[in-house]
Amino acid sequence: MRLKVGIVGASGYTGAELMRILALHPEVEVTWATAQTYAGKTVGELYPHLRPFAQMVYQPFDPDRAVSEADVFMVALPHGESMEAVAALRERGARVVDLSADFRFSDPAVYERWYGRPHRHPELLREAVYGLPEIFGAKLRDASLVAGPGCYPTAAILALAPLLSEGLCRGEVVVDAKSGVSGAGRSLSLETHFPQADGSVKPYGVGAHRHTPEMEEMMGHLAGGAGPKVVFVPHLIPMSRGILATCYAWLERPMSQDELEDLYRDFYRRCPFVVVLPRGSFPQTKDVCGSNFCHLGLYSDGKGRVICASAIDNLVKGASGQAIQCLNLMMGWEETVGLEVLGLFP
Amino acid sequence: MRLKVGIVGASGYTGAELMRILALHPEVEVTWATAQTYAGKTVGELYPHLRPFAQMVYQPFDPDRAVSEADVFMVALPHGESMEAVAALRERGARVVDLSADFRFSDPAVYERWYGRPHRHPELLREAVYGLPEIFGAKLRDASLVAGPGCYPTAAILALAPLLSEGLCRGEVVVDAKSGVSGAGRSLSLETHFPQADGSVKPYGVGAHRHTPEMEEMMGHLAGGAGPKVVFVPHLIPMSRGILATCYAWLERPMSQDELEDLYRDFYRRCPFVVVLPRGSFPQTKDVCGSNFCHLGLYSDGKGRVICASAIDNLVKGASGQAIQCLNLMMGWEETVGLEVLGLFP
Amino acid sequence: MRLKVGIVGASGYTGAELMRILALHPEVEVTWATAQTYAGKTVGELYPHLRPFAQMVYQPFDPDRAVSEADVFMVALPHGESMEAVAALRERGARVVDLSADFRFSDPAVYERWYGRPHRHPELLREAVYGLPEIFGAKLRDASLVAGPGCYPTAAILALAPLLSEGLCRGEVVVDAKSGVSGAGRSLSLETHFPQADGSVKPYGVGAHRHTPEMEEMMGHLAGGAGPKVVFVPHLIPMSRGILATCYAWLERPMSQDELEDLYRDFYRRCPFVVVLPRGSFPQTKDVCGSNFCHLGLYSDGKGRVICASAIDNLVKGASGQAIQCLNLMMGWEETVGLEVLGLFP
Amino acid sequence: MRLKVGIVGASGYTGAELMRILALHPEVEVTWATAQTYAGKTVGELYPHLRPFAQMVYQPFDPDRAVSEADVFMVALPHGESMEAVAALRERGARVVDLSADFRFSDPAVYERWYGRPHRHPELLREAVYGLPEIFGAKLRDASLVAGPGCYPTAAILALAPLLSEGLCRGEVVVDAKSGVSGAGRSLSLETHFPQADGSVKPYGVGAHRHTPEMEEMMGHLAGGAGPKVVFVPHLIPMSRGILATCYAWLERPMSQDELEDLYRDFYRRCPFVVVLPRGSFPQTKDVCGSNFCHLGLYSDGKGRVICASAIDNLVKGASGQAIQCLNLMMGWEETVGLEVLGLFP
Repeated sequence: MRLKVGIVGASGYTGAELMRILALHPEVEVTWATAQTYAGKTVGELYPHLRPFAQMVYQPFDPDRAVSEADVFMVALPHGESMEAVAALRERGARVVDLSADFRFSDPAVYERWYGRPHRHPELLREAVYGLPEIFGAKLRDASLVAGPGCYPTAAILALAPLLSEGLCRGEVVVDAKSGVSGAGRSLSLETHFPQADGSVKPYGVGAHRHTPEMEEMMGHLAGGAGPKVVFVPHLIPMSRGILATCYAWLERPMSQDELEDLYRDFYRRCPFVVVLPRGSFPQTKDVCGSNFCHLGLYSDGKGRVICASAIDNLVKGASGQAIQCLNLMMGWEETVGLEVLGLFP
Repeated sequence: MRLKVGIVGASGYTGAELMRILALHPEVEVTWATAQTYAGKTVGELYPHLRPFAQMVYQPFDPDRAVSEADVFMVALPHGESMEAVAALRERGARVVDLSADFRFSDPAVYERWYGRPHRHPELLREAVYGLPEIFGAKLRDASLVAGPGCYPTAAILALAPLLSEGLCRGEVVVDAKSGVSGAGRSLSLETHFPQADGSVKPYGVGAHRHTPEMEEMMGHLAGGAGPKVVFVPHLIPMSRGILATCYAWLERPMSQDELEDLYRDFYRRCPFVVVLPRGSFPQTKDVCGSNFCHLGLYSDGKGRVICASAIDNLVKGASGQAIQCLNLMMGWEETVGLEVLGLFP
Repeated sequence: MRLKVGIVGASGYTGAELMRILALHPEVEVTWATAQTYAGKTVGELYPHLRPFAQMVYQPFDPDRAVSEADVFMVALPHGESMEAVAALRERGARVVDLSADFRFSDPAVYERWYGRPHRHPELLREAVYGLPEIFGAKLRDASLVAGPGCYPTAAILALAPLLSEGLCRGEVVVDAKSGVSGAGRSLSLETHFPQADGSVKPYGVGAHRHTPEMEEMMGHLAGGAGPKVVFVPHLIPMSRGILATCYAWLERPMSQDELEDLYRDFYRRCPFVVVLPRGSFPQTKDVCGSNFCHLGLYSDGKGRVICASAIDNLVKGASGQAIQCLNLMMGWEETVGLEVLGLFP
Repeated sequence: MRLKVGIVGASGYTGAELMRILALHPEVEVTWATAQTYAGKTVGELYPHLRPFAQMVYQPFDPDRAVSEADVFMVALPHGESMEAVAALRERGARVVDLSADFRFSDPAVYERWYGRPHRHPELLREAVYGLPEIFGAKLRDASLVAGPGCYPTAAILALAPLLSEGLCRGEVVVDAKSGVSGAGRSLSLETHFPQADGSVKPYGVGAHRHTPEMEEMMGHLAGGAGPKVVFVPHLIPMSRGILATCYAWLERPMSQDELEDLYRDFYRRCPFVVVLPRGSFPQTKDVCGSNFCHLGLYSDGKGRVICASAIDNLVKGASGQAIQCLNLMMGWEETVGLEVLGLFP
C-alpha cells in the first residue's frame, strides 16, 4: 500500500512541482492538496500539465481533516504561514517536510531578525532537521520534521561543503548566484513580468538576502564552529529554471587541482545526485533542468584560491525534489526513488 | 530480462532524447549507441545530462556488430543516411523504428521529389508502418519497420484527424506552425545561432517545406481518398522545445462547439497521450514540455469554420517519445510505459 | 522653437516608448507627462533608461493645466479612459494623437459591442482619422484627432493593403499573428509572468479578439466596400517586442510571384518605413526591433493563393512610433523625422 | 562635408553595429566596408536591418584602395588579423580606431602570452591609446590609433575606476561577469547554438580568460602602479545583448555608503554616458540595451567591503558605440554625437 501524502499549499510552483514528481513516485499516493485562494478549483484549471490530478479539488487547510486524509505532509506555504500549519500537523503526530524558511534556523532570534516576525513555535526548531541529505542524511532517517533548505543555500553549500568540512576556508566566501525566474514563485511582480525580465540580468537583494544567514549557519556547522562570512549576491536570469552558484573561496593552504578534485569526489562518493564534472568542465543549468542532480565544476589556481560552480534546478534539487529525497530517507526508501528523471536537455 | 535496444545515430538531439527516455524505461536496456563524427567519444562528453550513459562509448555503425549487440534498433540518422542503415538491419532480421523521413511515404517518387534523391530501398516502403499510434495503433503491433512521423505532421494530423476521418474537411486546411529551435537539430546554422534566433520570430520554408506532402498523404489516408490541400507555414520561435500547430479548417457543414468537442473526445477516448482541453482553453507548449502528451484546443464559429490548435514537444511526441510509444506497441507492452513523465512546467 | 508635447498616460509601455523616441526628436520637447498611480514619482524611478526625463515628475491629468503646459497631446491611456481625456483636450482646442481603441471605429455601436461600454463621445468619431500613414497619409495632414491603430491591425493591414485596394481578395483572410509579450502592456497577469510565458507559445482570444472588427472595418474601407471576413488568431511568443503577422489570402484570379511583388513595390513606393523584402526572403521581427519599419515577405503559389508575412515592432510601428509618424504629418514635418533609428539586430 | 569613414571587417556583429550607429551620425558618412568571406555580397543580404546600406557591396580589404575611399577607419577584424590591416592603414597615414585586442597591451610579451602569437607590429603599441574615454579622454583627442577596450574590461574598469584611482583597493578584486551571447560574435559554435544556450547559464574560460590581463594592466594604470589581482569569471547568459559585471572589492579602509556614492558621482561627473544609480538601485542590462550608457549600482557594508555592479550593452559601450565615442573625441566633436539613443526598454 502506498504512503498517503498530503500537500499543503499546493497551488504555488513548489507545490505543483511536488505533485509533478510524486505523480510517478511508486511508493506514494498524493491524496490531499490544499490551497487558500484557489480552494474549490481543480488542479487541472491551474496546471494543465498535472494530468493525473486534473480532477482533484484544492481543499482549504484544516489540520484535523488533514490527518484523516494523509499520513505524511509536505508543506509548501509561504514563510510565516508555514509555521502554524506545521505546528498543527506536528501536534497531531504527523511527520512533515516543510519547504519554507520557518524551521531552518536553530536560533529563533536569527529568524526574527531576517524574516521580520517572531517565531511562534521555537520549540519545534530543535526537532527540525535541515533537509540537505548529502550533509544530514543520517539524521534525516529519523526525522519527524524536515526543514527543506533554500534554493541558493542548497547550491552554495554543496559547492563548498568539502572545503568547509576540512576546515579549509579562510575569511570570506563570495557566492555570486544566478537564478531563473521561477525562484520568485508564482506571485506576480514587476520584476517577474516577462517584458521586464526577458533579455536582462540584474542583481537583487544586494547585502540583504535572507539566504545569507542560512548559508552562514550551515557553513559554520560544516566548519565545526565559526564558518566563513558569506558575501552573497543573487541575480535574476532570463530563464525559467535553474541556479548557478559561482563560489569563490580562499584556502588556508594552497591546493592543487588534483587534490581539490580528489577531495570533492571522495566527499560525494555516496551521493547519487551530486556529480563532480571532469576537469575543465563547468556546469550549465540546462543539464540539470527538471532533475534532482547537482553538477559541480572546480578550479584551483594552485595558490590557495578556489572557484567552484554548482548548478541545480531551483524547483527540484533546490526545493521539491530535495524535499522528496528527504521523504525517501525518512521512510527508509531508496534515496533516489521517484527522482531518477534526467535533466531535460536541450 | 530487458530488451536490448541499439540506437543508431545517437549523438544528435533525437538520439540523445531516446537515451534520456529509455534510461528510465523498465523493459529496455540501451546496449549500443552509434555515432559517426563522435565515434570513440563517451556519451558523457557530449551530454552531461545522460548520467547513466556517461561512460558509454559511441561506436561506428556496423550492421553485423549491431545485431550481436542489440535486438531492436531505433535509428535517428539524417534523411538519406537512414535508409541504408535500416535496410542493412532489416536484412539481418532486426526490427527497426526509424525516425527519419526515409520510410514515411508509400510512393518513392514523392520521396525523390521532395528529398532530392532516389529512394534506394523502395521495397521496404510497403512494410513500413507510419508511426502515429493514435491512428495506426493496430498495425504497429505487428510492425517490423516503423517510420516515425515528422514533428509538424504529428502536431497537424492529431489536430485534424477527427475531422478528416469523418470526411468533414472541405478544400484547404491552413497549418500555421510554430516550432522551438531544437527542431532544427544539433547542426549549426546562422538561423539557429542564439543571437539571431533569440527575441525573434520568422517563417521559413514558405510554400516548400518537406512536411507538406507527408501531411497530405496521411490526411488523405484519414479522409479515405483525396484529402485536403495543406497550406503549411512553419515558424521559428525563440524557445528550445515545443510545437504549436494552429490549424484552420473549413467544414462541409456547420458544426457547433458541442458537436466539435464530442467528436474529438470520442475519437481520442482511448489515447492516453492526447488531451482535449476544456472549452475556452487553448494549449501552451510548455504544458507538454519534456512529455509525450499532445494538448488540443478547439474553436468552432458555428458556421463551418474550425480552428484547432495542438501542442507537442517536438523532441518527444514529435520524435523520440513517439518512437518509444511505437516500440511499446510493437513489443506488446503497455503503450505508456516509460513515457509517463508529465510536462515540465513552468 | 520646439513643439511642446504633453503625454497623457505616460507610465505605461507605450507612454514610455513615446518619451524614449521623442527624447531625440529635433522638433519636439516633451513638457508634460501624466500618470495616475504614479503621480508624484519621477520618470527615473519607473524607467531608468529614460535618462533625459529622470527628474521629470508624473502629473495628475487635468485638462486645463494640460493646455497651459503643452500644445499637442499624445494620449496613451487604457481604452475607455482615453475618450474622456481626449474629449476634454479637444474641447480646449488641442490637437490630439490617441493610441487607444476609443476613436478607431466609425460606428459607436461596433465600439460598444466589442469594448463592452457605450461610447461617451461619438461626435468625435467623425473627426478622428485612423492613424495609418501609409493608407491615410493625406487626411492625417489636416487631422485634429488621430486614432492610432492597434498593433495587430497595423501588421495585418500593411500585409494585405495592396491586394485589398485592388479588390483582389476573395472570401476570407486568415491572419495568424505572433506577438511579443510587451503587447500586453505593463499590467501584471499570470499570462505575462515570466515563468509562464518563457519557453512557451500559445494562442489567445481565439474567435474573439477586439482587433478583428478593426481589421475588418479598415480592410473593407480599402476594398471599397465589403471587405474580407478576417479569421484572426493572435499568439503570445516568448520575446519582449515584435509582431509577425502571417496572412493567408485567396485571390479572385491567379497571380504570379512577379505580379505580386510589383503590386506591393508599387503600392509602397513612397512609404519610407515599408520594405518589401527580396524574393525568397521573409521577415524576422528582430530586424525591425526598436524601429518604425515594417518588413514584408511575399509568396504566391501562382494559382490564387498568397501568403504575406509582415513584421513590426509592436511598441514602435505598432503604437508609439506610428503615433509620432502621424504627428510628423500633422505638423507638416518630414514623415521620418525622429524615427530614423534602425532595427536593433542582433 | 561629412567625414568619410571606412569599416574594415564589416560583416561581423561589431562591424554591423558600427554601421547601424553611424547610419544616423550627422558628421559621418560610411563610404567603404570590407568583408572577406562575404566580399561581393550586399550589406542588405546579410543584414536586412541596415536599410541605408542595403545596396552597399562588401569589398575585399586593400589598404591602397582604402585610403582613396575613406579618411578614417574603424577596424572590426578578429584578433591577429587586425594588426596587419591597422599597420597598413597607419603606414598610409590614416587614423584608425581598432576594436580588436591587438593594440590593447603596452607589452607585446603579454599579448603573445595570452593570444598565442607574436605581435607583428610592436612599434604601434606605443602610439595606441586605450579607448576608454572616461579614463583616457584627454589622450584620445590627439590619438592616431585607438585600441578599443574589450567588453568585459569596459564593464569592470568603469565599475572599479573610482576606487582604483584613489588607491583604495586591497588585494584581489572578484569580477563575476554575465554576458549576452552576441559577445561571442557571429561565428557559429555549439556553445552559441540556440538550443544549447537558451534557458541555461554557464561559466566559461574560468581562470584563463584573455580579458584578465587587460583588466589588470588598466587597473594597475589607474592605481598608479601595482593594481589588484583580478579574479575573473565570465558567464554566458540566455540573452542577446548586455553585460553585467558584479565586482567585489576589499578596501584599505572602511567607507560609508555616502562616501562611496560621493566618490563615484564626483569621478564620473563629466561623463555623459556613466550613470550612478540612486541608492538601493542596481543596474539591469535591459536599461542600457542598444545604448552607449553604463549604469552603476553601489553597495558598501561599511566595513571595507564594496560591491559594484555595472551594466553595459556589450556591442555598444562594450565595442562599437565606445569606438564611435573615441572617434568623436579624435575629431574634436561632441563626445555624444550620434550616440544619444536611449536604452531599448522593455
